[in-house]
Formats: sequence, structure tokens, C-alpha cells
Amino acid sequence: MSQYRVLIDANDEKGLVHKVSSIFYNYDLNILSNSEFVDRESNKFFMRSVVDGAVDKEELNDAIRRVLPKGSGIKILEPVKKNIIILATKEMHALGDILIRHEAGELAANILGVVSNYDALQSLVEKFDIPYVTVSHEGIERSEHESKIIEAIQSFGDVDYIVLAKYMRILTPRFVETFEDKIINIHHSFLPAFIGANPYKQAYDRGVKIIGATAHFVNNNLDEGPIIAQEVIHVNHAYGWRDMQRLGKDVEKVVLSRALKLALEDRIFVYANRTVIF
Amino acid sequence: MSQYRVLIDANDEKGLVHKVSSIFYNYDLNILSNSEFVDRESNKFFMRSVVDGAVDKEELNDAIRRVLPKGSGIKILEPVKKNIIILATKEMHALGDILIRHEAGELAANILGVVSNYDALQSLVEKFDIPYVTVSHEGIERSEHESKIIEAIQSFGDVDYIVLAKYMRILTPRFVETFEDKIINIHHSFLPAFIGANPYKQAYDRGVKIIGATAHFVNNNLDEGPIIAQEVIHVNHAYGWRDMQRLGKDVEKVVLSRALKLALEDRIFVYANRTVIF
Amino acid sequence: MSQYRVLIDANDEKGLVHKVSSIFYNYDLNILSNSEFVDRESNKFFMRSVVDGAVDKEELNDAIRRVLPKGSGIKILEPVKKNIIILATKEMHALGDILIRHEAGELAANILGVVSNYDALQSLVEKFDIPYVTVSHEGIERSEHESKIIEAIQSFGDVDYIVLAKYMRILTPRFVETFEDKIINIHHSFLPAFIGANPYKQAYDRGVKIIGATAHFVNNNLDEGPIIAQEVIHVNHAYGWRDMQRLGKDVEKVVLSRALKLALEDRIFVYANRTVIF
Amino acid sequence: MSQYRVLIDANDEKGLVHKVSSIFYNYDLNILSNSEFVDRESNKFFMRSVVDGAVDKEELNDAIRRVLPKGSGIKILEPVKKNIIILATKEMHALGDILIRHEAGELAANILGVVSNYDALQSLVEKFDIPYVTVSHEGIERSEHESKIIEAIQSFGDVDYIVLAKYMRILTPRFVETFEDKIINIHHSFLPAFIGANPYKQAYDRGVKIIGATAHFVNNNLDEGPIIAQEVIHVNHAYGWRDMQRLGKDVEKVVLSRALKLALEDRIFVYANRTVIF
Repeated sequence: MSQYRVLIDANDEKGLVHKVSSIFYNYDLNILSNSEFVDRESNKFFMRSVVDGAVDKEELNDAIRRVLPKGSGIKILEPVKKNIIILATKEMHALGDILIRHEAGELAANILGVVSNYDALQSLVEKFDIPYVTVSHEGIERSEHESKIIEAIQSFGDVDYIVLAKYMRILTPRFVETFEDKIINIHHSFLPAFIGANPYKQAYDRGVKIIGATAHFVNNNLDEGPIIAQEVIHVNHAYGWRDMQRLGKDVEKVVLSRALKLALEDRIFVYANRTVIF
Repeated sequence: MSQYRVLIDANDEKGLVHKVSSIFYNYDLNILSNSEFVDRESNKFFMRSVVDGAVDKEELNDAIRRVLPKGSGIKILEPVKKNIIILATKEMHALGDILIRHEAGELAANILGVVSNYDALQSLVEKFDIPYVTVSHEGIERSEHESKIIEAIQSFGDVDYIVLAKYMRILTPRFVETFEDKIINIHHSFLPAFIGANPYKQAYDRGVKIIGATAHFVNNNLDEGPIIAQEVIHVNHAYGWRDMQRLGKDVEKVVLSRALKLALEDRIFVYANRTVIF
Repeated sequence: MSQYRVLIDANDEKGLVHKVSSIFYNYDLNILSNSEFVDRESNKFFMRSVVDGAVDKEELNDAIRRVLPKGSGIKILEPVKKNIIILATKEMHALGDILIRHEAGELAANILGVVSNYDALQSLVEKFDIPYVTVSHEGIERSEHESKIIEAIQSFGDVDYIVLAKYMRILTPRFVETFEDKIINIHHSFLPAFIGANPYKQAYDRGVKIIGATAHFVNNNLDEGPIIAQEVIHVNHAYGWRDMQRLGKDVEKVVLSRALKLALEDRIFVYANRTVIF
Repeated sequence: MSQYRVLIDANDEKGLVHKVSSIFYNYDLNILSNSEFVDRESNKFFMRSVVDGAVDKEELNDAIRRVLPKGSGIKILEPVKKNIIILATKEMHALGDILIRHEAGELAANILGVVSNYDALQSLVEKFDIPYVTVSHEGIERSEHESKIIEAIQSFGDVDYIVLAKYMRILTPRFVETFEDKIINIHHSFLPAFIGANPYKQAYDRGVKIIGATAHFVNNNLDEGPIIAQEVIHVNHAYGWRDMQRLGKDVEKVVLSRALKLALEDRIFVYANRTVIF
């Protein structure tokens, strides 16, 4: 008896829930949880079921495929730990939060390693017996540096997710394509406000009364990938931009860890640059 | 072609989604939205589907009943306006918020009337051409007063929900039984903290940093009925209890209106003194 | 014995608190509340004191002016009701919230009148015996329409604040200059995200997980005036943009009323396109 | 030139701000920030100033004392690191958060050591080169165990604050008196709701829609000491109590760290079982 996460996306048509739930019933699978959503505007159907039973994954996949419209997406996943790599620069809070959660057994993930352009976080990471690779960007071109980063990541083998825990370097399309749909970033602003450099300074200058952070998948348009999670915190006139930055760290780390957890539990669908999260 | 809200609660067993969705499919009903939840602890299954099509309600009810375990609950409801009566005392904010939403067409409800133990709100209510009945509690026993309130309510005919918009009188079991499962109250505290009189004074004395409000169904244990919605707001040492009271009004009215909207859209299941809300 | 709100802004220098509080002491004024803030970046000092006593306002003003650096701002205000005019278009929620608060005696304001480019809200407003002026924009040029709006406003006499309660017309610099520092707007977005038309559609398309509203003073750069208050609410994939719009109304009205209250209590300083709020 | 935090509490009387700010002026001290609050109900005056200059602390203290009512409290503190000891049991999240913040240099504190009744967290703590003392409670009386805990704490020398980072043992009055006003606890509930054991189970049973955490000083009435900080998070019917527990950890750790930071910066006054926080 095993547990499976079944994720389906399809063009909507009458009877999809009926057809898929019939298959679960015929295979004697128990539905532990079930979520559906139809986006009326795009006519897209999304379904995530957690089922319990004895079944051949391929056979189940085939059975479901036969009843769905052509071009549908089907994933049947076991709840196993995923392999992740963390990229960081010098700030400790987001990385530290993931390390502690990992140590506490909260994350269904193996941290294969941490890659950074500085050695500032090496001593922290190595306390947890996790490999740390420094790839300095000094004295070399951006593209060469990125090649080395990609190499460092790939040296750890297959990776499910790359977590940018305040990695402060701009990524090129090549990087994004190499790890398509696998890169999760925390942007230290309430996107789409304050895209770009030093959002806290921008927020301060604009005199906002709330600041926030946004975890999102990275695509080729920097800061514009599908949003996974956002959170905010109230500020007032007494906060200079460095105070906002300090305070913002608490939001950043919580949001990034929340997004990572959703990804590790296979709860996220992406379409039309948006996410459906069950 | 009509729309129906189908609400089902049952003891959980394998295949319920399959069975119900098969019926929808066989009757050629289109599922507009579908939510399910299984409470593992009590082994209770809840389902709310909005379907679209041409079907005889009784026939559909029978068909669903045949596939469900004995003792299951089934409701098939059309999205029509419900009849509500509002009870108030002297405070205007919660009542006023409902009146404005009603006037703006935001609420799927007919307000049959407002009943109060004071005439303080009469001029406001009558601006909106809504009947207002004052039933003074002065000089009479509690039970006699309540009898008159019940009479006033019943004089308006059938009522779906009674909304206590800061009605500051304690209700007896007789009242609660007369309108079982139909009474929605806003409690001016984050329940179950500060049960009873003057919660803002209690909250101030306790030195809390957050205050809140709770909308709940009323059962025989005052302040202990199933919670529908809660919201909070941060306060600090500079807030006296009257400031908290003033500030709390904004939370109270938003929470009460939110709960009322959920009820009017048939989104709430009650069991084990808790609510399942889709 | 009267109460006064003393508002001071000055270039900071050593001893300002000492100098001002000495004057209060010498005039035998009791300090009921006192707030100060120094913006280190701009070296600006802000102070708001509420004092109680018998004093000639002019004399107090002169006494304070003598001890402050040249060019300082001093306001000595009595806590009287201010005159406001509300501009609206067709949406009822923000206007309705202000009307109810006014009726409940929550606002230290006289609503002189409501001006709109449609008559949609006339019947609501007149329920409260408040004058309503419709100035249709149909068939006339923008500038001519605005002239008529200005005329309508000025026909009510002196006004302290003009509240844009979802007034959906763009204002020209002429309007803004005519009522400088007096116009409070609610923008249906978490500024500076989604500046411009239909922010909820923009927010939906961007796939945000939080929406918000922003109350701000209006200056010549549309949507870019000093922010007074902001609030947010969480959404998810199940919210279409019209759902966000509906939900957003609750945030809009709360934020606008909160900002108006701060203005009516003389709690807001504006400088460098930001606000200091005590 | 040094910085000092001056904290004053006194029975309120006319002229206190004037008198104290005159002293700062006479000693040529620059006021970097200044906060005051008068609690009208108890007629208590609170003031916290950060000043900059060259002054003898004792002399300044005497000067201030001379102008304040008898019985006033005065503290003149330098912004130095405080010594703290953390008590924990088995849960890692709250302790881990403090360790990471400490490592990142966010906390103005030296962590002298961690004391626990289990060795579960030893390996984590020792990664950071911080002493860890296990004092098992097994096989001994509560009072003997507590004596050993007190001994373990005192073996580290003088301590400014003892942080209960989910220390799951009840403290006796003796413990509380030994470290009066120095013990900060995180209670895994939105106090005063769900006092006592397993608040998440209690919250689940009550069907709440919001859970929270409360950081407070510990006094002799368990869970009833002065509240420093509170935060909440929304939940729904799909959360079992273990889910609430998991989710609650994120709130607990943020609230505890926030309270600790306020204490380390000398921003908290305690009176009448409440806190004034500047």
C-alpha cells in the first residue's frame, strides 16, 4: 500500500471529475484528499488528489490519460524527499531558516549543497555538514561566472529545485532555461511594486506603509515569474530604509520557506504566469 | 437551465466522490465548482457542488440519496435571496454596514425588518424603507421581553437568518431553539478569549497587543456556538479600552458581513460545534 | 479651558523639545499627549502635542515661533469639526461607509455635499439629508467638466478636505492646485503596484496572492501623492478579477475612512512626498 | 561621546517633559529619539529617550531624580550586549531562530548557554559553540529538578534575560522570584485564549479560524504575565490540530524573537501587568 499524489491539468469539459474519480474507484484507491479548480477564463481544469492503495503507476497514468482530453498533463508522484540546492550571497536569514527547518525534519528535502559567490556563509553551512561551494564572480565575466555556477550545481547530480535564498546576482536566460521550472526566488518586495535593485530604498522613498516579500518561480523576465506566496508587514514613518530591510528579513524567510514547502509537497500548478496552489 | 447548490455531508467511505459525480454526469449537469473535505478524526465527508443544468430537484435528491450511506445530509438549493431579520440595540456600525451592502446589491438577501430594544436606530433604518420594530425591555421580565421579540420576528413571516448586529441582550434557550441554526452573532472579542461582558475592558486589563471579533452561530451556550469567521487588529499600550472599542467596530462589521455572506451563499456546514466553509 | 493641537515641523537642532515644552510649561498648559519624530536623513523635526489650558492662540504661536529655527511650520488648531465634500462616481461602498460613520457621530466632520458625474448615488445620499450635485461629463470636454465640478465644490463655501470616494475621473493639475493638500483619494491597489486603470485586472493577470488599497493625498502626479494608509487582504487562484474587485471594496472603504479620520484629527504631516503620522 | 538610553517612569504631573528635556539641554546632550506616554487611567508617565553626548551617568541620574516626583524609576543604560540563557525542551524552531539571528549578528546578546531537560537539541546548539546543559527531570521531584535548573543557569554567572524557547515545564514561584522580571516566554496560543496544556488541540476543538502566539514576561500566575508581543495566522477547517501546531511554529518563533529584540533594546516598561513598548 502506497500513497500517490496525482496532479492533472486539462482543458475543461463535462465529466472530468467523474471520469478520474471512477478510475480511482476501479483501482480501489482511497482518496485521502482531493482538490479541483476550473479557471473559467482560460477553461482550464486542475485537480490534485492524494490517493492510497496498491497500483502500478504506469498503468494508472495510462488509464487516466485515456479519459482526459488530448494534451492534458498528468503527474503521479510518490511523497519522497526532493533534492534541492540553495544559492545565496552573504545574507544569512533566509538560508539559516531553511537550514534549521531541514535540521528539524520539517522539510521533505535533501539539501545537496549551497553555492555562493562569497564564502561568508561557509562556516554556517558546514556546521550542518552540508557542502558549500564558493564561486567568486570577481575578475571574470558574468557569463563565465554563471557557467561556473551551473557547473557547481550540476556537480551535485540531479536536482529538483534550486532555491535562491537572497542570491543577489542577475540570472541570464541560459541559466533559467537550464533549470526550467525549478528555480524558486525570494524577492525582497511586494511584487510587482519595486522591481529591481534595493526595493527597501525604493519603498522608503515612496513612503509606503506596508512592505512585503514575494516568492516566485524564476522565468526569463526577472522579477516577473509566477508568484507562489506573498506576505506583508506594516511600517510607519519612523522606519528608515535600513529598518525596513531588517524587518523585511522576517517576512522574506517565512515566505521563502512557505513557498519551498508547497513545492516539495507538489501543491503548485503553473499556467499563464500564475500559480494554482492546493 | 438552472443553477443548483448541492450540499452533502456523510460518513466517509470509499467512492463517494465517484458516486456523486457519476450522478451529475448522468443527469448531464455541468459542475461549475466543487469542493470536498474529509475530516479524518470524525470520518465525516463534506461536499459542496455548484451545478448547472435541467433537472428535477426531488429526482436528483433521490438519486444522490440512493448512493450515500444512510443518515447522510443532502441539500439542493437554488441561489435565491434569503429572508433575514436583524436584531440590534443602539450601536450603528454593524447594522449600518449591512444596510449599505444591501442597498448596494451586495447581499443576496431581503431584509424583512429590524427589531431592537431601543428606538435609537429607527431613523437610520427607515431611511432605507425597512420596517423597524422597537420592543422595549423596560419594566418587564426577561422572558416576557423575549416573547415579544420572538413575536415581532415571527410577524414578518418565514425567516432564513436572524443577524445579531450587536444585540446586547442575552438570549434564552427558548429563543435559540425557536430559531435553531439560524442565528448569527458578532461577538466583540477574539473568542474564546474574553467571553462575557465588556470584552474590550477585559482585553485592555489583560494588556493584549491584538484585539479581534468573532462571528458565530448561536447555540445554547452563550459565546460558544460554531465559529464562522474571525478577524483581528493590532493595538498597543496607547489604546485605552474605549479606543479599542472604537477601533474594534471596524473589525466587527467586516467580520459579521463576511459571515452573513457565507451563510447567504450556502457555504457553511456545521458539525461538532465547528464549521466547514467552502 | 480649551484643548489645542500644536503641530510643529522644523529643521532639527539641539533643544527643540526643551524649548517648546518650556513654553507649554510657562503658559501653564497641560500636555495631554506628545509625539516627536526626527527624520535623520532630511534632518527634519516633527512634533504634535495636544495641550489643555487657557491661552491666546496668537500669543502661543508667537512664543513658539521665537524659539524655532526660521522657516519652521507651526499650526495651533482647535478640535472642531472640519468641512468635507465627497466626490464619487457610481460605487456605493466607500461613500456609504463614510455616510454611516458620519451618521453614527464617528467623524469630526460636516459633510457639506456629495458631487458626482452620475446620479446613481443621489437617492442614498439624500436619505441622509446631504446635498447631492450631479455634474455629468457627457457631451462636454474634460476641462469644462472639471470647471463645473470645481464650481459645484466651491458653491458649498470653504472646504477643509475633498474625499475622492472612488471618483473615477482623472484630475488635472488645475484641480489639484485649486485644492492643494486637501484632496484624499482611495486607490484600489496596493500602490505603487498597478498604477492606472483597473488594478484588479492587472493584479489578477500578474497572479498576485495579496491585494490591497492605498489612501493618499493627491498631487500632480496621479497615483503618486503621499501615502496615508494602506491595507491588504490575501487572495488565491480561485479569485477572478471581479472577485478581487468585490473583496477589495472591504479594504478600500476601511482604508479611506482610516485616512480621513487621521486627517480630521490633524495627525498627518507631509514632506518629501511622504507622511509622518502621529 | 557615548549613547545612553534613558528610561523614566513616574506619577504624571505638569512639566515632566519640560523638566527632563531641560536637563538634557543643560548637559548638552543631543536627543536621538524620544517617546513619551501618559496612561490617563493610572496617571503614570513613561519616557524613553536615546541621547548622545559626554556625561557622567551618576550625575545625570541625580539631576533627573531631583526634578521627578518621589518614587520615580530612572534607568540610564548603555547600548551594550546583554547576557541571555535559553531554556528549551525538544522543539527546535524557536531556539533555532534565535541561534541563527545570533550568528547573523542581529541580536545584541551573548548567549551564555542553553539549558534543557533533554539532550535532543545538544548537537544543534554545539554547532554554534554554545554550551549546552542537560538537566533531566526523570526520576526526581519537580522541586529538585528546578533547583538543578537554577543551579545550571547560575553557573553561567550574571544573566539579563532567560528565554523560554518552548520550555515545556511549569515553573514554580521560587524560580520566578529568583529571576524576577527576567524571564521571557513564548506561549503557543493567542493568550488569554487556551491557557494551559496543548492549546492547539483546544483551538482545534473550539473550531477557531485564527491561531496565534504570545510572548510575555513570566510572573507567578502561569500564562498571565505581561504581554510583550502577539501575532496570529488564519486557519480553516482543513487544518487538524497537528497542522495548526506545525503552522503555529512559524508564528511562535517570529513573536519570541521580536519580544527578545525589544527587551535587548530596553524598549519595554512593565506596570499593572501590562507593557508599554517604545
